[in-house]
Amino acid sequence: MKIAIQGERGSFSHMAAEKMVRGCTVMPCSLSVEVFDALQRGRADAAVIPIENTLAGPVTEHYDLLFSRRVFIHREYRLRIIHNLIAAPGVKIGDVRRAYSHPVALAQCRDFFNGHRKIRPTPFYDTAGSVKHVVEQKLTDAAGIAGTLAASEHGGRILARGIEDDKQNFTRFLLIDKKPTRIAGANKTSIGFDLRNQAGSLFKALSVFALRDISMSKIESRPVRGRPWEYRFFVDFLRGDDEHARNALRHLAEIADEVKVLGIYRAAE
Amino acid sequence: MKIAIQGERGSFSHMAAEKMVRGCTVMPCSLSVEVFDALQRGRADAAVIPIENTLAGPVTEHYDLLFSRRVFIHREYRLRIIHNLIAAPGVKIGDVRRAYSHPVALAQCRDFFNGHRKIRPTPFYDTAGSVKHVVEQKLTDAAGIAGTLAASEHGGRILARGIEDDKQNFTRFLLIDKKPTRIAGANKTSIGFDLRNQAGSLFKALSVFALRDISMSKIESRPVRGRPWEYRFFVDFLRGDDEHARNALRHLAEIADEVKVLGIYRAAE
Repeated sequence: MKIAIQGERGSFSHMAAEKMVRGCTVMPCSLSVEVFDALQRGRADAAVIPIENTLAGPVTEHYDLLFSRRVFIHREYRLRIIHNLIAAPGVKIGDVRRAYSHPVALAQCRDFFNGHRKIRPTPFYDTAGSVKHVVEQKLTDAAGIAGTLAASEHGGRILARGIEDDKQNFTRFLLIDKKPTRIAGANKTSIGFDLRNQAGSLFKALSVFALRDISMSKIESRPVRGRPWEYRFFVDFLRGDDEHARNALRHLAEIADEVKVLGIYRAAE
Repeated sequence: MKIAIQGERGSFSHMAAEKMVRGCTVMPCSLSVEVFDALQRGRADAAVIPIENTLAGPVTEHYDLLFSRRVFIHREYRLRIIHNLIAAPGVKIGDVRRAYSHPVALAQCRDFFNGHRKIRPTPFYDTAGSVKHVVEQKLTDAAGIAGTLAASEHGGRILARGIEDDKQNFTRFLLIDKKPTRIAGANKTSIGFDLRNQAGSLFKALSVFALRDISMSKIESRPVRGRPWEYRFFVDFLRGDDEHARNALRHLAEIADEVKVLGIYRAAE
C-alpha cells in the first residue's frame, strides 16, 4: 500500500504511516497540497497527515485541505513525539555547534539547549530533512533534531535521545482515503462548517450538541479565504453515525452555511 | 522607542512596528520567546507580534506567550501582506531557479509558481531572512520572497511585485507592553481561559457573552501543556471595560478555571 506523506523519509509522518499500515511504502511530498493531489489522482492509495500536536496545536493547512478536497478520514493514531540529536557518522556531541530542525522541534528542546550552551538552535524547514542535510553535506560541526527513523533512513548517528522538554508530546495523525467507508465501531465524527457573521452564531451552533448531551472533543476555527475576519469551524464529537448524531447535524444545517462530514471513525485509545 | 520583533530586519513585523510607532527602532530576535524576554527584562520598550493572518490563521505560539507572560495588549494593526520576489543586485528574473521563503509565504504564491515553471519554491525559515541570505551569499540563480522592506534593508532588488495569489491577505499585529494602560475609547477585550474537560463546558462559557448580547469577534483553542487533549480558549469580544463586560467576565470565572484579561484596547478600523 502506497501512502503519501508531507516531508522527507524518516519524518514523524513516515513513523505514523508505518504504525497505521504495516508494510506500507511511503511517497514523500514536499508540500501538503501535493499529498492531497497524489491521493486524489490515484498516485497514492492513501495519505497519512498530522492534524494536531499536544504542545504546538493544530496543523491548520490540513484542516483547510480536509474541508476543500473530496477525502475522508478512516483512522486516527496518536504518536509519541521523541526528538533526538542526530549527526553524520564520526561526529561527536562535543563537536556540534549548530542543531538544525523545524522551529517547532527546536522550541520543544529548550532544556537541552540550556544544558548545551555551545550548541546553537538553527531553524530548518523540516525535522527529518535536517538530518538528511547534515549527513549528505558531511557536516562535522552540526546535527539535526528528528525522530529515530530519520537516523536509519539517512545514515545518521544518534548523539542524544529523548531531548524533548515535555514527555506529554503527542501528535494525532489521520489516515485519509478518497472513498468513504463504513467503519465498524465508529464512535467519533469530524465535521467542518461555516457560520454567518452574526452575534451568537457560534453559541447556537454548539447548542445542537449540548442540547443532545453530545461531547465535543475538539473545536478549531480557521479563517475563511476571501472573507477577512470570518471563520470556519471544525468540531470533533464523540458519536458515530447514530440517530442522535444525525439529528444534531440536521439541526446544525439550519444554523450553519455549509456542513461537511470529514469522517466517521474509531476514536484512538 | 525600541521595539522587539521576531525575525530579521525588513520582516512584516518590522513593517508593522514602523506603522504602529513612527520613528521606532526595531530589535530583531530569532525566537518569539526572546521577544517576550527582551520586553520583560526592559531591554525593549515594547514588542510588536503577529497574532493572526487571514489566510494562514493564528500564530499559536504568541497566544501561549500572551497567556503565560505578564504583558498587555495596547493596540492592534492590520497589515496588508504583499509578497515580492527579491534577489541580489544584477540577477534577472530569467536567471532565477529557486525562490526561498517561509513555507507559509510560498503557499500564498502558487499562481506565480504556476506561471513561472522554472522557479522552484524552496522552504526557508524566514521571509526577510531569505532575502538576506540570497544577497549576502550573492546567489545568481536564486531569490527570496518577502515584503518590500526586506529589499531596502538587505540591499536586494525587487524582480516581481505583489506575487501573492489572494489580495485579501492581512496580518493582525499587536503592540504589547509590560504595563497595563487605560486606553481611551477601548472597545475590544482579549481574554484567555481554561475549561474543565466536561461535556458542554465550552457551550456554558460562551453563554456568558450570548446572554448579554456581547459579540465575539474571534475564538481560538490551544492545547494545554502537560494535559494532552485538553484545551485553553482565547476569545476577543467587542466591548471595552464597561459593566456588561465586567459582569460577563465575573460569570465566566464561575465556569472557567482561570480567566486572564490579555488587553482592553481599540479595535482596528
